[in-house]
Amino acid sequence: MKNFLDKISVPIKSNLEEFDYHFDKSLESEVQTINSIVKYLVRKKGKRLRPRLSLLSAKICGNVNVKTYKVASLLEILHVATLVHDDVVDESDLRRGWPSVGRIWKNKLSILVGDYLFSKALTNMTEIDSMESVKILANLASRLSQGEILQIEKALRKDMTEDVYFKMISDKTASLFSAATKTGACLSASNEKEKKALESYGRNLGLAFQIADDALDYYAKEKFFGKEIGKDFFEGKVTLPLITIFQKSNKEEKSFLKKIMKNEKRTEED
Amino acid sequence: MKNFLDKISVPIKSNLEEFDYHFDKSLESEVQTINSIVKYLVRKKGKRLRPRLSLLSAKICGNVNVKTYKVASLLEILHVATLVHDDVVDESDLRRGWPSVGRIWKNKLSILVGDYLFSKALTNMTEIDSMESVKILANLASRLSQGEILQIEKALRKDMTEDVYFKMISDKTASLFSAATKTGACLSASNEKEKKALESYGRNLGLAFQIADDALDYYAKEKFFGKEIGKDFFEGKVTLPLITIFQKSNKEEKSFLKKIMKNEKRTEED
Repeated sequence: MKNFLDKISVPIKSNLEEFDYHFDKSLESEVQTINSIVKYLVRKKGKRLRPRLSLLSAKICGNVNVKTYKVASLLEILHVATLVHDDVVDESDLRRGWPSVGRIWKNKLSILVGDYLFSKALTNMTEIDSMESVKILANLASRLSQGEILQIEKALRKDMTEDVYFKMISDKTASLFSAATKTGACLSASNEKEKKALESYGRNLGLAFQIADDALDYYAKEKFFGKEIGKDFFEGKVTLPLITIFQKSNKEEKSFLKKIMKNEKRTEED
Repeated sequence: MKNFLDKISVPIKSNLEEFDYHFDKSLESEVQTINSIVKYLVRKKGKRLRPRLSLLSAKICGNVNVKTYKVASLLEILHVATLVHDDVVDESDLRRGWPSVGRIWKNKLSILVGDYLFSKALTNMTEIDSMESVKILANLASRLSQGEILQIEKALRKDMTEDVYFKMISDKTASLFSAATKTGACLSASNEKEKKALESYGRNLGLAFQIADDALDYYAKEKFFGKEIGKDFFEGKVTLPLITIFQKSNKEEKSFLKKIMKNEKRTEED
């Protein structure tokens, strides 16, 4: 993955360094506890997937400018904020192989630091001064939270279908990817055709990314994946691998799957 | 309180009805679970303190318009969102005498519905189309979360002073009140002098409101207050009543207070 990311990022190598500066700058707070937690959260650079997409889109359409850095920072902040809240929601102890914020600082602070990060994304948003981008981002924020809630709703009612699955990952993952590619284009000198093409590219890339991530939850090795394996299954989250297995199984297997997914908890044996 | 609110709201009586329409409209979602929770949250009209302030400010400066309703809705949504997250952070079982969302739907959904409400506030923000207001509101969101975190930081380190207390309530309460009065003015036909005066009025009203609320936590009766009494004390939150008692006590009493506030928990006897 890393090699691939380096390869596609050759045209924006110097831009990524300038991005780091903007990103760190936009997170500063006067409250000491916030700075400690944020420092921990961003101590290891993530893959910066969403900022890379914004920067690359801007580069394709014209040029990377100050607003591109702001929107790229904002998207990465929004992504980190959702991860922090997700860890509380999922009661995760690990994030990329390291203790989650909730594990070290308790859930109280995780929720509030997540909120703080959302507010910082908002501050960046006001500095972009482009109503078109602000509208894309407001819509994004609403889809992100609705996607997560839809996932819980369907997990509780056990009626996840392939259609609902695609709606859900479209809201909770693909929306952020397509916002990255589209705003990158919007803030550069692009035309409507380029914007639409890049938005669609981001959306499909996001869908592919989430499908792969959900599959890795079943097939990967914890050491390489950096997350616990089988979490979705144990937590009763129905993702594409399970939907596919269900479709391909006979009557007896179907009733077994329904039974174990209805239980409060699932065991290793299941 | 209710009588007083009705009295000062005479000039905006018809506007409040129109506000209710805008407010309900801006919360609609395609996800069923969200609609159920939101319906529960707003089943009883709150005091609508912040919207009243926006509408009154706009009325004083000129007129109430569509944008005023949007900003008033946004402020009430932001207020409800912080209450939902606060209940998770404080592990509250009661909110205005009723079970909190976390008690009924579990903390997972409380966090996500809080995030959803923030995103809806943001959507309203983009519809206002006034960069001046958007900047006030972005700054507000960042102060709200920083104020809460500062409170936890100081509670853990037991070094709350009167100065820090005022900084904290200024961020977590007065900021919302002054944003209400100032944006109300900004979106009406007001001049700089009016804006400043109304901003300052909102700030001071917010400070007074929080000081009273913190005092009621020590002196009120649960039946009328609608919250558990003594929560701040039991949770180790240091507010003005405790700071004042500490300042007025002798050496022996001071060391007793320090001792009990250092404990993990405080008892009824303390």
